[in-house]
Amino acid sequence: MQSRRIVLARRPDGEPVPEDFRLETVTLPEPGEGEVLVRTRFLSLDPYMRGRISDAKSYARSVEIGEVIVGGTVGEVVASRDPSWRPGDLALGASGWQEAAVVPATSLTRVDVGGESLSAALGVLGMPGMTAYTGLREIGRPKPGETVVVAAASGAVGSAVGQIARVWGCRAVGIAGGAEKVAYVKDTLGFDAAVDHRAPDFAARLAEACPDGIDVYFENVGGAVWDAVFPLLNFFARIPVCGLIAQYNATGPAAGPDRLQGFMRQVLTKRLTLRGFIVGDFASLRGDFVRDMGTWVREGRVKHREDIVEGLENAPAAFIGLLKGRNFGKLVVKVA
Amino acid sequence: MQSRRIVLARRPDGEPVPEDFRLETVTLPEPGEGEVLVRTRFLSLDPYMRGRISDAKSYARSVEIGEVIVGGTVGEVVASRDPSWRPGDLALGASGWQEAAVVPATSLTRVDVGGESLSAALGVLGMPGMTAYTGLREIGRPKPGETVVVAAASGAVGSAVGQIARVWGCRAVGIAGGAEKVAYVKDTLGFDAAVDHRAPDFAARLAEACPDGIDVYFENVGGAVWDAVFPLLNFFARIPVCGLIAQYNATGPAAGPDRLQGFMRQVLTKRLTLRGFIVGDFASLRGDFVRDMGTWVREGRVKHREDIVEGLENAPAAFIGLLKGRNFGKLVVKVA
Repeated sequence: MQSRRIVLARRPDGEPVPEDFRLETVTLPEPGEGEVLVRTRFLSLDPYMRGRISDAKSYARSVEIGEVIVGGTVGEVVASRDPSWRPGDLALGASGWQEAAVVPATSLTRVDVGGESLSAALGVLGMPGMTAYTGLREIGRPKPGETVVVAAASGAVGSAVGQIARVWGCRAVGIAGGAEKVAYVKDTLGFDAAVDHRAPDFAARLAEACPDGIDVYFENVGGAVWDAVFPLLNFFARIPVCGLIAQYNATGPAAGPDRLQGFMRQVLTKRLTLRGFIVGDFASLRGDFVRDMGTWVREGRVKHREDIVEGLENAPAAFIGLLKGRNFGKLVVKVA
Repeated sequence: MQSRRIVLARRPDGEPVPEDFRLETVTLPEPGEGEVLVRTRFLSLDPYMRGRISDAKSYARSVEIGEVIVGGTVGEVVASRDPSWRPGDLALGASGWQEAAVVPATSLTRVDVGGESLSAALGVLGMPGMTAYTGLREIGRPKPGETVVVAAASGAVGSAVGQIARVWGCRAVGIAGGAEKVAYVKDTLGFDAAVDHRAPDFAARLAEACPDGIDVYFENVGGAVWDAVFPLLNFFARIPVCGLIAQYNATGPAAGPDRLQGFMRQVLTKRLTLRGFIVGDFASLRGDFVRDMGTWVREGRVKHREDIVEGLENAPAAFIGLLKGRNFGKLVVKVA
């Protein structure tokens, strides 16, 4: 079977460009014992991939030059040499940026999206949704009446964070880029307030939207948004750190002065808690997440929006746009 | 009754100087209903006081110009108009930098130092000891075999942190200034290793002393020590932040580049936990602390050393020296 795939042609220097990626066609082998051939239907595009195609030391190994770029996928089993999978089965896996792959049966899990589209397994009902749920619950620990702020609020993680915060009785304030996204966050997702980070008076507007300060800041963007959030943090505020998309293309440290010591001073005097995490750190909460999020989505308490790009060949451009905030909703590639 | 006291003459600009303090003599009133006259025996000098005499917003209000400087004290009741206190009773309180004071009876607590000197109620068996115990236990959460690093390791908090870590089965690495303190930390306190932060190859020596990296860094100094510690932090390291003495005299941010974004990147990828705290945040653990630390001190598992300065009039110079690391052990002023 022929399959197209996208490999890393070279490491991006700052912002990725199309030349950093290469589309190839390969012939797949037959599945061996315990292996399954899966044809990808949807590929998830997520900010963390920027780290994986760099060579900076991190929590996972880097994609090497010439390797297929990593990514979560949902697909259909075409052939199986494992008793637990049969042709036609739908499977959640991590085939990466390719149309089909032969993978170990143990790397696949069943998909259950209820009445949602299959791609929801990569979004609100998948990794991004669980990132929002676990980070907010275990690190943010919001109490009813507290103010929870999240950026990229129309995106996969941010939209879930704010809506879950509201389910739990909090005031949810979203930050997004541009009037259309801001209106969506406020009017469709039902956040208590939404603020445009592109507005020249962004910091002042954020302060207005948080009259009682900020108790939980779910950090998924970093950069300039953090600078506006930081002075508003209340004593004993909690900051789950799950992403820093605004910094991912940075090629070196920013100009001075060095704010690190002042930051630590605030950590001390305000008794702040910061904790970095990735969703895998809370794998034991999978059952809780599936139960709670499944219920909320079914009941319409958590809404979600997808930005679907057609065709694997368009993945690089879509990914480059993701890092600039061009997507509107969870970005997925419809592969087949 | 006449009493001498030291008030804030003006706010220090950077390093405090003697002219920032003023010695006065006042006549104390008779205690009113529910009040107690206490003569101070020992006054505790602690780094946090630098924050209290500045006007930066913090967790407690600033000492105003002309006010007596705050501080923990142990003393003897001279006169009482409250049924729970009688002349001759020993009391722990917060009279501040003065020889005697009329205070509400409710501001005093009984002193129990077992066979230790009365001043231990201001050190290993008091606020600094409880700071070490609660921050290490609740935020550091060290597991047996892990590496715990603390600076100012011959001081009141640091010496307790390392020794408690050893009681709990950890490798304790202390950082101190100068050969004499380093030898004391290693040989007398029994830390597994001690490193001199004044050594030109300090960072390399610290790395040698932590062959398995650092799992818990109990942050009480900040500044250059932090810079050496940061690259050695392991994945999932915990950092209780209880003090930043090396930064307290800073008058502005350090020169660039700005390391804040790089710091956040490490928080994320290494899944670090930072949390600021003060001892009052863990007041509910007082019973546990009294029981455990009392036992360890009695059994000789936690040793302590005091640096005793004679006479209230010498408090300013001693405090100025404290911020430069000139004391050797818990700094207390013997007032009477």
